[in-house]
Amino acid sequence: MDGCIFCKIVKHDAPSITVYEDAMTLGFLDNYPLNPGHTLVIPKRHYETMREMPLSEVGDVFVSVAKIMRGVFKATNADGINIGQSNGVAASQEVFHMHVHVIPRHTGDSPAGFTFPERKRSSLGEMERIGSMVRDAVARET
Amino acid sequence: MDGCIFCKIVKHDAPSITVYEDAMTLGFLDNYPLNPGHTLVIPKRHYETMREMPLSEVGDVFVSVAKIMRGVFKATNADGINIGQSNGVAASQEVFHMHVHVIPRHTGDSPAGFTFPERKRSSLGEMERIGSMVRDAVARET
Repeated sequence: MDGCIFCKIVKHDAPSITVYEDAMTLGFLDNYPLNPGHTLVIPKRHYETMREMPLSEVGDVFVSVAKIMRGVFKATNADGINIGQSNGVAASQEVFHMHVHVIPRHTGDSPAGFTFPERKRSSLGEMERIGSMVRDAVARET
Repeated sequence: MDGCIFCKIVKHDAPSITVYEDAMTLGFLDNYPLNPGHTLVIPKRHYETMREMPLSEVGDVFVSVAKIMRGVFKATNADGINIGQSNGVAASQEVFHMHVHVIPRHTGDSPAGFTFPERKRSSLGEMERIGSMVRDAVARET
């Protein structure tokens, strides 16, 4: 869709550090990761939220999520992984192209309870380094 | 698996307010909802996390999630829905049978930013009332 940053990434009209791609889905690093290796997984087709998606494409996206989370676990030596997907402003959705967060977690990286680390920005070099590790680890899972 | 509360729910050896069931998956109300209508979706087979699941069963679970979230949207008149799935203690997982949270959200129901409402307990009658509404709404989506 015109003006959608994730559609631009799919068409290679905007830069991204891609870690996985197949016919229906794309996985790439979040530019403002909660932890290094934080990855977004999207359907290549534009849907604002999960609500509008054909069920088969929801399945496609989460099969990719399952592959990618296994690679992220290994590449980041994570203790856990949060999967998150927000539908609507009331659920904190910010980009209106359906996307799934794959967030590596490390013991004690946020306050006790259901809390998350602060978003942080890495250098491009560091992003490319972690992206390469995730991409290689995901490739070994698929 | 012996001792797993979600396996007991699958076998009807523990009570639950079921809102959706098919051959591979089950959806039932969370006993400590963040908002009324907060639903859990699980594979009937026991897997600790998404990491151990056959990819096809991950797809099955999230196709059920997509059906259920559409029903939850309508039944609760939600403004948004958060989908969440935690793998490992470091990611706040508490029950070690893979499960997906479908959380209806209403504008302003938590502080600004990526935050969540407090968990709350409802009466059994109120839980059964909302469960019936969600079940009927999900049935109309499938």
